[in-house]
Amino acid sequence: MKIVDARVIVTCPGRNFVTLKIVTEDGVYGLGDATLNGRELAVASYLTDHVVPLLIGRDARAIEDTWQYLYKGAYWRRGPVTMSAIAAVDTALWDIKGKAANLPVYQLLGGASRESVRVYAHANGLDVDQAVKAVAVQLDLGYTAIRVQSGIPGLSSTYGVARAGRPYEPAEKGGVTEHRWSTEPYLNFVPRLFERMRSEFGDEVDLLHDVHHRLTPIEAARAGKLLEPYHLFWMEDPTPAEHQDAFRLIRQHTTTPIAVGEVFNSVFDCQHLIQAQLIDYIRATVVHAGGISHLRKIAALAELHQVRTGSHGATDLSPICMAAALHFDLSVHNFGIQEHMPHTAETDAVFPHEYAFASGVMHPGDAPGLGVEIDEALAARYPYDPAYLPVNRRMDGTMHDW
Amino acid sequence: MKIVDARVIVTCPGRNFVTLKIVTEDGVYGLGDATLNGRELAVASYLTDHVVPLLIGRDARAIEDTWQYLYKGAYWRRGPVTMSAIAAVDTALWDIKGKAANLPVYQLLGGASRESVRVYAHANGLDVDQAVKAVAVQLDLGYTAIRVQSGIPGLSSTYGVARAGRPYEPAEKGGVTEHRWSTEPYLNFVPRLFERMRSEFGDEVDLLHDVHHRLTPIEAARAGKLLEPYHLFWMEDPTPAEHQDAFRLIRQHTTTPIAVGEVFNSVFDCQHLIQAQLIDYIRATVVHAGGISHLRKIAALAELHQVRTGSHGATDLSPICMAAALHFDLSVHNFGIQEHMPHTAETDAVFPHEYAFASGVMHPGDAPGLGVEIDEALAARYPYDPAYLPVNRRMDGTMHDW
Amino acid sequence: MKIVDARVIVTCPGRNFVTLKIVTEDGVYGLGDATLNGRELAVASYLTDHVVPLLIGRDARAIEDTWQYLYKGAYWRRGPVTMSAIAAVDTALWDIKGKAANLPVYQLLGGASRESVRVYAHANGLDVDQAVKAVAVQLDLGYTAIRVQSGIPGLSSTYGVARAGRPYEPAEKGGVTEHRWSTEPYLNFVPRLFERMRSEFGDEVDLLHDVHHRLTPIEAARAGKLLEPYHLFWMEDPTPAEHQDAFRLIRQHTTTPIAVGEVFNSVFDCQHLIQAQLIDYIRATVVHAGGISHLRKIAALAELHQVRTGSHGATDLSPICMAAALHFDLSVHNFGIQEHMPHTAETDAVFPHEYAFASGVMHPGDAPGLGVEIDEALAARYPYDPAYLPVNRRMDGTMHDW
Amino acid sequence: MKIVDARVIVTCPGRNFVTLKIVTEDGVYGLGDATLNGRELAVASYLTDHVVPLLIGRDARAIEDTWQYLYKGAYWRRGPVTMSAIAAVDTALWDIKGKAANLPVYQLLGGASRESVRVYAHANGLDVDQAVKAVAVQLDLGYTAIRVQSGIPGLSSTYGVARAGRPYEPAEKGGVTEHRWSTEPYLNFVPRLFERMRSEFGDEVDLLHDVHHRLTPIEAARAGKLLEPYHLFWMEDPTPAEHQDAFRLIRQHTTTPIAVGEVFNSVFDCQHLIQAQLIDYIRATVVHAGGISHLRKIAALAELHQVRTGSHGATDLSPICMAAALHFDLSVHNFGIQEHMPHTAETDAVFPHEYAFASGVMHPGDAPGLGVEIDEALAARYPYDPAYLPVNRRMDGTMHDW
Repeated sequence: MKIVDARVIVTCPGRNFVTLKIVTEDGVYGLGDATLNGRELAVASYLTDHVVPLLIGRDARAIEDTWQYLYKGAYWRRGPVTMSAIAAVDTALWDIKGKAANLPVYQLLGGASRESVRVYAHANGLDVDQAVKAVAVQLDLGYTAIRVQSGIPGLSSTYGVARAGRPYEPAEKGGVTEHRWSTEPYLNFVPRLFERMRSEFGDEVDLLHDVHHRLTPIEAARAGKLLEPYHLFWMEDPTPAEHQDAFRLIRQHTTTPIAVGEVFNSVFDCQHLIQAQLIDYIRATVVHAGGISHLRKIAALAELHQVRTGSHGATDLSPICMAAALHFDLSVHNFGIQEHMPHTAETDAVFPHEYAFASGVMHPGDAPGLGVEIDEALAARYPYDPAYLPVNRRMDGTMHDW
Repeated sequence: MKIVDARVIVTCPGRNFVTLKIVTEDGVYGLGDATLNGRELAVASYLTDHVVPLLIGRDARAIEDTWQYLYKGAYWRRGPVTMSAIAAVDTALWDIKGKAANLPVYQLLGGASRESVRVYAHANGLDVDQAVKAVAVQLDLGYTAIRVQSGIPGLSSTYGVARAGRPYEPAEKGGVTEHRWSTEPYLNFVPRLFERMRSEFGDEVDLLHDVHHRLTPIEAARAGKLLEPYHLFWMEDPTPAEHQDAFRLIRQHTTTPIAVGEVFNSVFDCQHLIQAQLIDYIRATVVHAGGISHLRKIAALAELHQVRTGSHGATDLSPICMAAALHFDLSVHNFGIQEHMPHTAETDAVFPHEYAFASGVMHPGDAPGLGVEIDEALAARYPYDPAYLPVNRRMDGTMHDW
Repeated sequence: MKIVDARVIVTCPGRNFVTLKIVTEDGVYGLGDATLNGRELAVASYLTDHVVPLLIGRDARAIEDTWQYLYKGAYWRRGPVTMSAIAAVDTALWDIKGKAANLPVYQLLGGASRESVRVYAHANGLDVDQAVKAVAVQLDLGYTAIRVQSGIPGLSSTYGVARAGRPYEPAEKGGVTEHRWSTEPYLNFVPRLFERMRSEFGDEVDLLHDVHHRLTPIEAARAGKLLEPYHLFWMEDPTPAEHQDAFRLIRQHTTTPIAVGEVFNSVFDCQHLIQAQLIDYIRATVVHAGGISHLRKIAALAELHQVRTGSHGATDLSPICMAAALHFDLSVHNFGIQEHMPHTAETDAVFPHEYAFASGVMHPGDAPGLGVEIDEALAARYPYDPAYLPVNRRMDGTMHDW
Repeated sequence: MKIVDARVIVTCPGRNFVTLKIVTEDGVYGLGDATLNGRELAVASYLTDHVVPLLIGRDARAIEDTWQYLYKGAYWRRGPVTMSAIAAVDTALWDIKGKAANLPVYQLLGGASRESVRVYAHANGLDVDQAVKAVAVQLDLGYTAIRVQSGIPGLSSTYGVARAGRPYEPAEKGGVTEHRWSTEPYLNFVPRLFERMRSEFGDEVDLLHDVHHRLTPIEAARAGKLLEPYHLFWMEDPTPAEHQDAFRLIRQHTTTPIAVGEVFNSVFDCQHLIQAQLIDYIRATVVHAGGISHLRKIAALAELHQVRTGSHGATDLSPICMAAALHFDLSVHNFGIQEHMPHTAETDAVFPHEYAFASGVMHPGDAPGLGVEIDEALAARYPYDPAYLPVNRRMDGTMHDW
């Protein structure tokens, strides 16, 4: 079952997506998401210029061997560009394998470990009142777990908060927006935000919060401690994670569950976090963490250490990644929750898919393979339109984690 | 001192090199190497499509701020493509700063910490006798430290060994070569290789050897122990280093000094290796490890832990990287040794440079900035010509580290 | 660029300062602060009698080599006298290098990483009411971060509290003052002090507090915990730090950020504190911690471990040190905050300088080098006038940390 | 028993010594050595300008309180200058206390724990043959433990080796001598040196060797391993000790006993070395490590961890320090051995003393106090004559530990 063609499709139905399509000699093809938000074309080049020539003629069935071939063969390993490119190949090959077997991918991954995939929604507001309204909207949509972000008094912009009347989309066309950040107003505010949420919505709904890498370890420890009365489902990305042992300090001070991993590209980015049980949820994604094959190994390590999965699922990943995530979610034993940020109608049109949401849960569907398509003609009508995530500076101008 | 132009130059005077040229409003320009062997165009795209638009209008003097801006601004961090791109910017800005100050870059880095930069040469042969001859050639050239590699009885190809009559160049045009590997013949052979070297050349010459990631930790421990009588200067890359604590096992068993790091892209790739003193030489390069600014931070950590530098210096990096390495080498206190694999005449013609070799040592020269140029007209005559490093399989076909 | 002259200038425009002036063959000179409060002449002797003879004829550009030459050449290393002497040489050489390059020193250190350097002020009172007034004064001056100290009921004197109507100056002429200390009144009082501060000034202003080494680890843990509701910017010097692991006990109990380091003389005084993330701010100074070169290495280690800088900046250091600190502060990525205790008019007249304060921040200015001078004629009019810091005894007469 | 006078005497009977003399109201006086080789006048200034004024009027009997007063009162602590100054005060006060009690100091320290103090001698030669002869000379003198150093083939100068026909004295008048060092010749040579010693002198004599800080941890591990067949009494100063945990690497590889500490100034310089049992002998001295009072605390910690004492006793310390060392040695339970390098006749004439050597051992004598005097008139005939220890550079010019 030789690969006879592989090509990269870049499209921008509202936001940019990079897709790899691999075609086999018998006409079966598979799709993989290779989107790296703000650095899309580097991955596209990595694939087109350096990986695709190696795929032609290879056996599409040898997924693990191909993964190792691309990983070890790159010599310089890891990192978002490399691993997103490998992930796209891996995902497409699983799609092909499913189609060839006439089975949905989750069946190849050991079958369903649950009936459906619980997802959490985003709710945000420019202030607490708006955030309360936004949570109510999501509850009405059937979500039982909601990530809450709010504008912070004294800060002109905040991660996770949309401008009035628009869905949240941090990447911006035409250049990098610079935000200003101050930790103290945030730390003083965030406990009040969740005190209000609990008083409005009671103890039953699961509430999540994303710190978005903006605290030092001791500040994150303080945040976790102050939030304990409001028993978050998780506190996400409390501090940058390159120095994994930094999470130990947070862990000493709070029982607020910790989630991290949307920027991770390899098991080595979280090996210590997991082995030392410094986190509770690993949020690595199919596309940025080397594909389904690699993500399953991360999940295996996590299961051993009582860490559950909670994959990133924002709209910076295409429906192909969402489909792959749902197959993964449905199958691994230690699934926790899946982020769900619905794509725009334009995006859904370019990527018709079998997966569906209802009553707070999702299911990948039972179509062979991943159950997601790309409408190439429609995709071609949306040319690449560069956009960047913002950067963040402290009040004195120091670069800070966004 | 605003940046008014930045562009990427890809050229292949025998092998591929990616160069970033940054021009400031007063006409001063700087050069940075962005070459990632076998994945060159991905870095070129990362720069051209995503980084260059951000550079225009920025203050060329703000090197640290620009580094952080690109590192944190990428959101997904680390990895060879990202860090090589950032390195190119950083290197070019140091070149500019030196020219603006009318000082060679090493003077900006604290001045010379030594008279010159000791380098080691490569010697290899298809068998021990040829390797002996090759070492003799390098000794005649003035080198006092020589890395020795040899063909291994029973293995059809070996890392580091050139085909007869040609300089060693592992990357090949037109596709990926697959090698076959077996550990046991290597482990049985390599002590004999160095026994012979010592009997031929005595105890005075410094001998190095590159295991090239091919052993497990316990195998590497065995190799180190068996090589002790021949007191290597270092044993390089004994085992893959993603799981840094793996080196502890090697370390428990042998006093053979350990060098690693040519594939590292960040201090986080070696933080534990250094802090736990699991290595003796850190071989990270300017171009793959985030530029002069980041490499100095790695060196500062290493100095504190009695680890010396030993930067990779093969011909997969351009003369711009070699120049930057020599300025770095000359200035940091804990320099150990520098790899030197001379470029071809074609490459040297495209990149005229001030640095020079004599009597086993090199010096970056005293021209302002890095002291290296690019002849763009000449470069344009050598279009990009894709090539790949080989991959490696065990005898049963298992993918193995090359 | 040989050094042709070097000499030490001791002056006392209100308080004692020791300055090293190094002159090169082309007439460029540099200044370094060598002031060690209460032990000034020992450093002056160390320089004049033992270091200056070694400087003549050396290359002023070889800063790192000279640092190592003086550090390793002393044989007995570290300690405040040795390291302040080395710091003075290092600082003067950076001043020279900047002037020779026609660049402010911060440009040689990688350029500005922020717009300006945020500083914190001192406010103190004999009781809480006075302390409240003192804070209000500093807020009016534009400071946004204020260190608050207060007299403690039951204790006749307290660190950090000025006598009525005078600026705070702990060193006294004519002998050592003995204070009396009792921990329990302090621990009972200090939470009330900050409760009052928050009720007066709200949550926005950053408040700092200096414990000044007076608690045991478990007492410091208690203090930190009790102060959490008032969310200090930092708690400084909670316990003596010679036994670095003592901070682990504090760390286990409180999320109040910890700052330490004004008495440190080497990275080895804080290596474990930083690597184990036992502190949040490292307060080492240019003059006592071996100069700009060494302090940058400390900062590089700290950056890796999410520890920010917060250099000591009391008036026991001369304006030369303040200038050097501001160049350092402006350039390193992980700057946190800078202490600012304005010098007297007499001192400022002896040391004319480019740096300036406005609206809670400072900037080193853009003059070549450090941007600070010494008026030698004026300096000569203020001969050395010995003064001592106080000592401290517990109520039973036991010597205690002051 | 008030102190009424204290003064510093600097004399150079062949080499420089700094002595503190403290006189009490009843005419009893005590002597303390304050010699810091190559930085003598800085300690003299520390004492004369900053400490002596504080001593007048104090109770000479309050030794511990005075120690703490000077240690904590300095605010900036530790380091060779500070601790040598404090040591001189401490030593002099113990001398006074002994005289006042009409007892030798060792009786105040708990009495004799042994009959005499075993000492080791130095033997060195320009080559192995000369070293053999030198050992024979020391054996004839009655020493049963001998430190052996030898010139190294290929190195023009070596630590510990005297020029022909002269006693060894590394400090030189008139400037700093620069030596050149290469590790590999040393490591290749030193096992042969001790192989010869064992073949000449058999297994009975205790042989010691001083590496003098010149190896990295892994090199020191190799040296210790290679020397195991010759079962050294100890291998001294194998690697610089600022980063104490570096000794762990040595310890993993060899059972050769390790001694370190002649440059230490405080228990904090060896706390980890001792608590982790990374060494076997602690070589801290009375004069550089804070005096008899502080050294006893170091010994107490060492006893707990089965580490014995082995104080430095070279001629860079005056006979006052030797006397103090012998009282200390005789009294502490965990004494190991004492270095003995006889002073010149000129020095002995300036410092008449009760201690004596015979048959490989020494005894402090039973005179009240330390049993050592200073002939001030004679001392005055030898004015200070500046000298420096050498520095060491690697072959490429890099500063190396001497």
